[in-house]
Amino acid sequence: MKNIFPFLDWISSYKKTDFVKDLLAGITVGIVLVPQGMAYAMIAGLPPVHGLYASLFPVLVYALLGTSRKIAVGPVAMDSLLVAVGLGTLAITGVENYIKMVVVLALMVGVIQFLLGVLRMGFLVNFLSKPVISGFTSAAAIIIVFSQMKHLLGISVVGSNRIYKTVINIFYKLGEINYVDFSIGLVGIALLLGFKKWAKNIPGILVIVVLGIVAVYFFQLETYGIKLVGNVPSGLPSFIMPTLNIEDVKQLAPIAIALALVGYLEAISIGKAIEDKTGEDTIKANQELIALGSSNIVGSFFQGYPVTASFSRSAISFDAGTKTNLSAVFSVILVVLTLLFLTPLFKFLPNAILASIIMVSVVKLIDIKYFKYLWSNRKDEFFVMLVTFLITLFIGITQGILIGVLCSLLLMVYRTSKPHFVEIGNIGNSDYYKNVIRFADEVVVRNDLLIVRFDSQLYFGNSAYFKKQLLKHIKAKGPALKGIILNAESINYIDATAADMLTKLIHDIRERELQFYIAGAIGPTRDIIFSTGIIKELQREFLFVKTKEAVDFFDDPNEISLLAAKVAYENSRMAKAKRNIN
Amino acid sequence: MKNIFPFLDWISSYKKTDFVKDLLAGITVGIVLVPQGMAYAMIAGLPPVHGLYASLFPVLVYALLGTSRKIAVGPVAMDSLLVAVGLGTLAITGVENYIKMVVVLALMVGVIQFLLGVLRMGFLVNFLSKPVISGFTSAAAIIIVFSQMKHLLGISVVGSNRIYKTVINIFYKLGEINYVDFSIGLVGIALLLGFKKWAKNIPGILVIVVLGIVAVYFFQLETYGIKLVGNVPSGLPSFIMPTLNIEDVKQLAPIAIALALVGYLEAISIGKAIEDKTGEDTIKANQELIALGSSNIVGSFFQGYPVTASFSRSAISFDAGTKTNLSAVFSVILVVLTLLFLTPLFKFLPNAILASIIMVSVVKLIDIKYFKYLWSNRKDEFFVMLVTFLITLFIGITQGILIGVLCSLLLMVYRTSKPHFVEIGNIGNSDYYKNVIRFADEVVVRNDLLIVRFDSQLYFGNSAYFKKQLLKHIKAKGPALKGIILNAESINYIDATAADMLTKLIHDIRERELQFYIAGAIGPTRDIIFSTGIIKELQREFLFVKTKEAVDFFDDPNEISLLAAKVAYENSRMAKAKRNIN
Repeated sequence: MKNIFPFLDWISSYKKTDFVKDLLAGITVGIVLVPQGMAYAMIAGLPPVHGLYASLFPVLVYALLGTSRKIAVGPVAMDSLLVAVGLGTLAITGVENYIKMVVVLALMVGVIQFLLGVLRMGFLVNFLSKPVISGFTSAAAIIIVFSQMKHLLGISVVGSNRIYKTVINIFYKLGEINYVDFSIGLVGIALLLGFKKWAKNIPGILVIVVLGIVAVYFFQLETYGIKLVGNVPSGLPSFIMPTLNIEDVKQLAPIAIALALVGYLEAISIGKAIEDKTGEDTIKANQELIALGSSNIVGSFFQGYPVTASFSRSAISFDAGTKTNLSAVFSVILVVLTLLFLTPLFKFLPNAILASIIMVSVVKLIDIKYFKYLWSNRKDEFFVMLVTFLITLFIGITQGILIGVLCSLLLMVYRTSKPHFVEIGNIGNSDYYKNVIRFADEVVVRNDLLIVRFDSQLYFGNSAYFKKQLLKHIKAKGPALKGIILNAESINYIDATAADMLTKLIHDIRERELQFYIAGAIGPTRDIIFSTGIIKELQREFLFVKTKEAVDFFDDPNEISLLAAKVAYENSRMAKAKRNIN
Repeated sequence: MKNIFPFLDWISSYKKTDFVKDLLAGITVGIVLVPQGMAYAMIAGLPPVHGLYASLFPVLVYALLGTSRKIAVGPVAMDSLLVAVGLGTLAITGVENYIKMVVVLALMVGVIQFLLGVLRMGFLVNFLSKPVISGFTSAAAIIIVFSQMKHLLGISVVGSNRIYKTVINIFYKLGEINYVDFSIGLVGIALLLGFKKWAKNIPGILVIVVLGIVAVYFFQLETYGIKLVGNVPSGLPSFIMPTLNIEDVKQLAPIAIALALVGYLEAISIGKAIEDKTGEDTIKANQELIALGSSNIVGSFFQGYPVTASFSRSAISFDAGTKTNLSAVFSVILVVLTLLFLTPLFKFLPNAILASIIMVSVVKLIDIKYFKYLWSNRKDEFFVMLVTFLITLFIGITQGILIGVLCSLLLMVYRTSKPHFVEIGNIGNSDYYKNVIRFADEVVVRNDLLIVRFDSQLYFGNSAYFKKQLLKHIKAKGPALKGIILNAESINYIDATAADMLTKLIHDIRERELQFYIAGAIGPTRDIIFSTGIIKELQREFLFVKTKEAVDFFDDPNEISLLAAKVAYENSRMAKAKRNIN
């Protein structure tokens, strides 16, 4: 039961002091949620009120089912952008049809997340590496900033999902800038940054929204041609079943998959980041998928659009001292009150104010520091980040993620296809066996004995490389060579292709009158050695726990203790046989 | 110069005895090459003479440029089938157009191989694992056998690239079997198998070809309605530039890429198999690509079709004692003589004889033994082989290879995403630290100290798993725990994502008043530890060469020798700094 409704975990021990903190945090988040929700809906290309609709039931459902106690769910910038970009490529006419499609999209995102959770696919998120996430987020932030330029400048620009087209379009319209809009936006940005720096406790977003409305109302700024949010329908959303047809579902499928994964990724990474700080350990990957999925499904019945955890609001909530998911309920109450009583006020809210809120909140997602870090420390991963960034920026968001993931997997495979292969030797007066190049001054190199270490699993992708390298080292040693010891400590797996190669190689090496020993094989590798042809070719007497023992045996083949033999020959088949005898 | 023309390597030291061996081997291979070439051209859907054309210039060009001295190049069964299946899906009308397309295909295959060689992409072949190759070859062999059924049975069956359709079509025509054709074919098969078993030195293929021609000629078997090869044009092929147009190139691209890679794979694996036996070491992956590519390009100017190394003829050549590529020149002379003087004889050669040659040579490629081996030893790789086999058999050859490669890469990634993570402990009276479960009877487990080993590189795909497992183990130890030692011997890499995770994790662990030590990190891992934030969080005093030293330090923090410290802290930055000082 507690697995399905994680809030049951804390509800029994809930204290009065917790309530006060949750109430305060909930209200603080709610104050930000209202303008942010409207702003993000605008990014998504929706009428602002849908951002408020998406802040009701999805938030409540997550409070019931989610495993993180401190994340704030609702509309977020990145997902809103994904919605806009995804639907931008489809030819949808009219706001009504657009809303319908967005609702279907929310339903699909929810169903995908729910199913992934049920199928326990939460581990998938592990394949989004940090360079991919950062490259992707940085590019998305830039796209969002440019998508808001028209609101900040008060010009009308044809939207495009190609950033360079947007930039060109803005450039052509620079002559038409409405300086009142522009000034309002700049003041908004300045105030937000100022509050953030010097008065952290004041909810800057709320202040500039109120100031904006007041300014428009009293100075009748609309006469200067500035763009306002306009009429926001009053009242709560009603229950409407999304209308599905196969054609739409097909068209929306790629963007729904991307949104489902990105949304999940955001929620889990924000949740984990907060857990890191609190030391709590409640998040369960698959239940999170189910919770987010349910949020989106229920949200789609009430004209919401895809939601996930918001980075900024989660941070605000955490700073305000939230204790449990109950705080989310108070945020929802605030949104309900807004929808019932405050919508008439938003008629006077300038779009430039919402644009300034969006810009300030996303610009910090551009991760220049990480770019620099990777550039100086990891050129290969820098490349992955750059590719992800450029493709996201210039080709598309889903393509960016996809190719980023592909690149990082390829990098991983490439890395293991030519792993580190070194000759090691004994460091005088110790039982250390280390790289003869790194420790050139200390290591004793013998001509009659080649000791090598291979730093990777042995599999089809590198078995040819392994063989080539070993033969090269054998050749370099010349005719004095009598034996070869393979230090297998970092060979953590041997697949069928490599096992075959190794078996044949040992055979060939022995035919050349050279001895071959394996030292330091770990358990799983020993199991493989014993279950394949390797052991028949090698003979178990040539397996050792430590390199030093192999060297001693090479020098004097009698010297091996009972314990050393027992540990060296242990493997799962033997263990099973022993158990059966007992 | 010797890199471009590898034959310069042996030509200077060429001996008279080598010449005799090359002459004999060349003639033996030539005797098989003529009927095989014709038979394989038939598989490819071409008039048999094109198999002879493909046995001229391509073979000569390879002799000049190839790095393997003992492989026999020319038409082969697998590539012929790929040609047939690939072109079968395009709607080509008329033999003339079909030939034109095949020639364009040969040119494209050549260009692709040549470019891959120039771009030094020879390593790509490493990604074809043995289960994929075996699964693919087994399925292809079955497809070839069924494609030859109609010739063996003397029925006419509409060709199809779907094996089940071929089987059904054959089944429907079973009533129309020509028993003379069938008998000839069965006798051919029986003789081939018989010679192979009891009289290895007799060239069985030549014998049954001669017997077939003689029988048809003297007993006028054509009156029984059997199918004959028919008129084979006499004379050498003339130089004709292939006619290219973009539409054809586009259509042929996927099949050309598959053929280029498969052909290369065959050549390199046959070449390496022979090198294994002779101890020679002359094959260079990229030069092989250039050699094969040039062969196919030149071949396409003389109405050839894609060629590569033949498994059966290379084996024959090796058995006959070939020494160098000169033997190939003698084979070519034999083909030239055939084209000039012997073509009239082939008019009387029954198709069933060619079918029996094909069937006997490919049926041994069905690798049931390897299926069984994987089934009992490697269920996961068995699955990869089975998928490759089934997709090749029922969906398509290129799809089979592609999905096979993808599956084996995914398996590799999956394996590294949840690697072996174990607690290790000291085996009494030794400095062995081993898995506490495997060595439950011997290991001393301490409550105040957790020693763990993680058997994989640490990267984005498993960094979350690592953290989860470590925290689980820490929790299980309970409040008595004072320190954690990570045995990093088999962690052969740490990527940026994982380095970040590890840095934060060490910080969190230390905040819980627990100590954290890393023991046994290998050189490349030490470099990463020292070049990322890990070292700042960890402090280098907590790095050790051996697990035992970390344990001793945990028990008594003063005890560390100068040498131990020096080896433990060695890293590339330090080494560079030291070099700069010197």
